[in-house]
Amino acid sequence: MERINTLVGYNNLKIFQNDDWFKFSLESVLLPNFVKINPRYKKILDLCTGNAPIPLLLSLKTKAKILGVEIQKDIFELAKKTIEMNNLQEQITILNEDLKNLKRIYDGDSFDLITVNPPYFKNKVNSVMNNEIHKQIARHECNTTIEDIIIMSTFLLKNGGHFAMVHRTERFFEITDCLKKHNLIPKRIQFIYPKIGSQSNLFMIDCIKNGKSEVIFENPLYIHNFDGTYQDEIKRIFKMKAGE
Amino acid sequence: MERINTLVGYNNLKIFQNDDWFKFSLESVLLPNFVKINPRYKKILDLCTGNAPIPLLLSLKTKAKILGVEIQKDIFELAKKTIEMNNLQEQITILNEDLKNLKRIYDGDSFDLITVNPPYFKNKVNSVMNNEIHKQIARHECNTTIEDIIIMSTFLLKNGGHFAMVHRTERFFEITDCLKKHNLIPKRIQFIYPKIGSQSNLFMIDCIKNGKSEVIFENPLYIHNFDGTYQDEIKRIFKMKAGE
Repeated sequence: MERINTLVGYNNLKIFQNDDWFKFSLESVLLPNFVKINPRYKKILDLCTGNAPIPLLLSLKTKAKILGVEIQKDIFELAKKTIEMNNLQEQITILNEDLKNLKRIYDGDSFDLITVNPPYFKNKVNSVMNNEIHKQIARHECNTTIEDIIIMSTFLLKNGGHFAMVHRTERFFEITDCLKKHNLIPKRIQFIYPKIGSQSNLFMIDCIKNGKSEVIFENPLYIHNFDGTYQDEIKRIFKMKAGE
Repeated sequence: MERINTLVGYNNLKIFQNDDWFKFSLESVLLPNFVKINPRYKKILDLCTGNAPIPLLLSLKTKAKILGVEIQKDIFELAKKTIEMNNLQEQITILNEDLKNLKRIYDGDSFDLITVNPPYFKNKVNSVMNNEIHKQIARHECNTTIEDIIIMSTFLLKNGGHFAMVHRTERFFEITDCLKKHNLIPKRIQFIYPKIGSQSNLFMIDCIKNGKSEVIFENPLYIHNFDGTYQDEIKRIFKMKAGE
């Protein structure tokens, strides 16, 4: 069912969702919060943009033009409606395209920052796949592998530009090896833990195209307290009030 | 000045120190706590053993024979006195040797576990070096580089054997790349933070020789509270009583 959610605390931005297909995730709020914005940024690209939560939230932190790219037509339509409803058409453009075609549309060395919350799971023949096609494409590497994303990002980023991603911790070394292979050098990493005492399930990484090999591991982020309520840091990011 | 410290809570083990030269560090207590001991282990090696805090603490967790190797004659003497004072000569042997010579003394594929708290700093010509020669060798890669340690460890470890190390977070990727290059595959990693809210300064890593490339990032370890007192987890590891 299609419905509109309001991001209270974030200028009451509104976002179109469809419960049957696709809902934006916690990570889509954490990543824009993790990203550092330079006031000189002119062009930002969000790959695998979904219903555009990352462009929406980045628009509160920057005046740069933001391009969101979504391969799935139906979800692209949700994103477009979302941008129009928030009157952000001047700043945010949504493109319905396979990211592998972006090389034909945009020049290399043209973006200051690329963000992505990509499909997390490898598309193995025997992997348990979500039957609903929209969810399947959003969660599994059907159309796009992590290396496709990284190769295209290296091409599109300016020298010294930033690449920020959230991904599953179990794929940490595969992903950091791939990033380094394509000259996106890790600069800042933050691990996410579902709760205190558990192992990390997700991490966020900020890389610099042709950067120096000096890396910072930020203080980790815990999502929940032992009692299942959100940690204070998460409440701050979600701009929740005390007691929520 | 030479003196004896008692490790209260750890069977009152005693350790010879020399304040002018060399004191064992917090990391030498954290690493044996991080290491998982298989009851089938027969031979354990601790490289850069110093005054032998790691062999001492491991002796409480295993009946395996433990060999500690220390290149510096004076510190080796402290380690030997430490082992004798604790009557652990049956279990722990200390060798005064350059680790690069171990290939001539021991067979390959002969150890179940190798631990190391190595010199942390690269021996650059212009790096600020500690004037006191014992500290200099213990802290800087004068005699031994991290790659020397890793190459020798791969040679000495059994297939499937474990390699556990503590090192500085700023060298994370250099070290994990080197480990993987020499077939020590990261299995468990734990980041250490001086306090909540700060960046990580140290990490502990457990690798398996020719292991699978699946890695777990353990819940991180914080050393201090905001008020400078030790965190509860650190108190537990140090077996401190409440209020200490």
